[in-house]
Amino acid sequence: MAVTNRQTVRIRWGDCDPAGIIFYPRYFEIFDAATAALFEQALGITKFEMFEAYEFAGWPLVQTHARFLKPTRFGDDVTIDSSIKFGRSSFEVDHRLSLGEEPCVECQEKRVWIVRDAAGGIKSHPVPPAVLAKFSA
Amino acid sequence: MAVTNRQTVRIRWGDCDPAGIIFYPRYFEIFDAATAALFEQALGITKFEMFEAYEFAGWPLVQTHARFLKPTRFGDDVTIDSSIKFGRSSFEVDHRLSLGEEPCVECQEKRVWIVRDAAGGIKSHPVPPAVLAKFSA
Amino acid sequence: MAVTNRQTVRIRWGDCDPAGIIFYPRYFEIFDAATAALFEQALGITKFEMFEAYEFAGWPLVQTHARFLKPTRFGDDVTIDSSIKFGRSSFEVDHRLSLGEEPCVECQEKRVWIVRDAAGGIKSHPVPPAVLAKFSA
Amino acid sequence: MAVTNRQTVRIRWGDCDPAGIIFYPRYFEIFDAATAALFEQALGITKFEMFEAYEFAGWPLVQTHARFLKPTRFGDDVTIDSSIKFGRSSFEVDHRLSLGEEPCVECQEKRVWIVRDAAGGIKSHPVPPAVLAKFSA
Repeated sequence: MAVTNRQTVRIRWGDCDPAGIIFYPRYFEIFDAATAALFEQALGITKFEMFEAYEFAGWPLVQTHARFLKPTRFGDDVTIDSSIKFGRSSFEVDHRLSLGEEPCVECQEKRVWIVRDAAGGIKSHPVPPAVLAKFSA
Repeated sequence: MAVTNRQTVRIRWGDCDPAGIIFYPRYFEIFDAATAALFEQALGITKFEMFEAYEFAGWPLVQTHARFLKPTRFGDDVTIDSSIKFGRSSFEVDHRLSLGEEPCVECQEKRVWIVRDAAGGIKSHPVPPAVLAKFSA
Repeated sequence: MAVTNRQTVRIRWGDCDPAGIIFYPRYFEIFDAATAALFEQALGITKFEMFEAYEFAGWPLVQTHARFLKPTRFGDDVTIDSSIKFGRSSFEVDHRLSLGEEPCVECQEKRVWIVRDAAGGIKSHPVPPAVLAKFSA
Repeated sequence: MAVTNRQTVRIRWGDCDPAGIIFYPRYFEIFDAATAALFEQALGITKFEMFEAYEFAGWPLVQTHARFLKPTRFGDDVTIDSSIKFGRSSFEVDHRLSLGEEPCVECQEKRVWIVRDAAGGIKSHPVPPAVLAKFSA
């Protein structure tokens, strides 16, 4: 099961550093929001509403790998194409950020689905079938 | 001369703090971008292009005052209404951020128009007539 | 009752914008942390521990006003002098950020003390006497 | 040639998300500053001063990989151990962030040394011998 989403984001002045290009931690802010957008598009609700609608307490990142191919700068409207593959209690998202036809950043992330446990802590948990169903629809 | 612009911005998970509401410095990131958007709408070019098109080296903030009326949270699509009044070498921008009909933040900022001086430093400078003309058009 | 605290913070590359100076929302991140540091110094515990130790659910900002006198840049080690005045359910913090002897930013903030209410929401609440006692000690 | 540096950083309220743990892009802000700190410790000058002292226009990131082992939260004082290995025109930095004895994040980054070219653009360039000499001292 693989689902994709596309977003366009404006790189802002305040995202950029004294070299005039984006400060790379801002890309991870963009990718985190792109992962949320991918779920929101598939589920039809916001991440905020997911906490009510599903057994869900977050999707902490386990690892991420990013390659930076070409810098972007303020005023650039970049496109992020995100695709997801589900495991049992985890999922992988692939983000490709480009400016026009030019690829600028490739990023892979692996996250786990977590829920609250009885003691109020968190534990990993299989992605709910109701969520998977929305992605296959 | 007063010109206005309206934008909608999605509050993101990563903009929010452990109380679940937006961490207020993120509002100032939104307002800084809203000021740029106001100019971009009036001038028809990005802030990046302004550095080429005009005598312009930035618009540093002199002072800002913000009142926080109602918190916003991730998933909220907020509206920012911005209006500008020009002085000679400075301008004031008024931002009103709301969620639906509810006002959430009111912010005033005063900025100066700066240009490069002969020594490579910066100095304040009258807002170029060509810029003012675009705003009155 | 007025209590003060002093911190030194290094302005980082990633705090600065394409003009090479600090992007002003970063100052509010610094001031928010300076307010926490002021309480931590008086109470002898971290803000995280305050949620356990006191009737406390946060101190949301009601309003803030900042004047920017002189820019700072990456590599600068700036000093923040913070002082607090308590009202009944609110308090005001005054931050003065300087580089060496030169004042760079003056900021006033007004915050309210909040606690959880019975319904799980939040409400303003008098600052606990145990907190005030630590500040007068 | 491998050189190391250690820093302690306080995780702040504003670094954390509605789950109460650090929002992971903040780790990359910490790592970027840790790379600068490593150079500053070896060279005895700030990154700001490096632009004057050396043929240097920055060290953009080519790629990074991070594994997140254990979350951290506001109030945590984390330790970052950074080590560097130089190539010809590039270098790799390894960051290990821990809380007490517990490893929390492992991050590798690869960066290139760049200088201004004749046209005002940037190009990669061998790390200056004067820089390498300071690291071997």
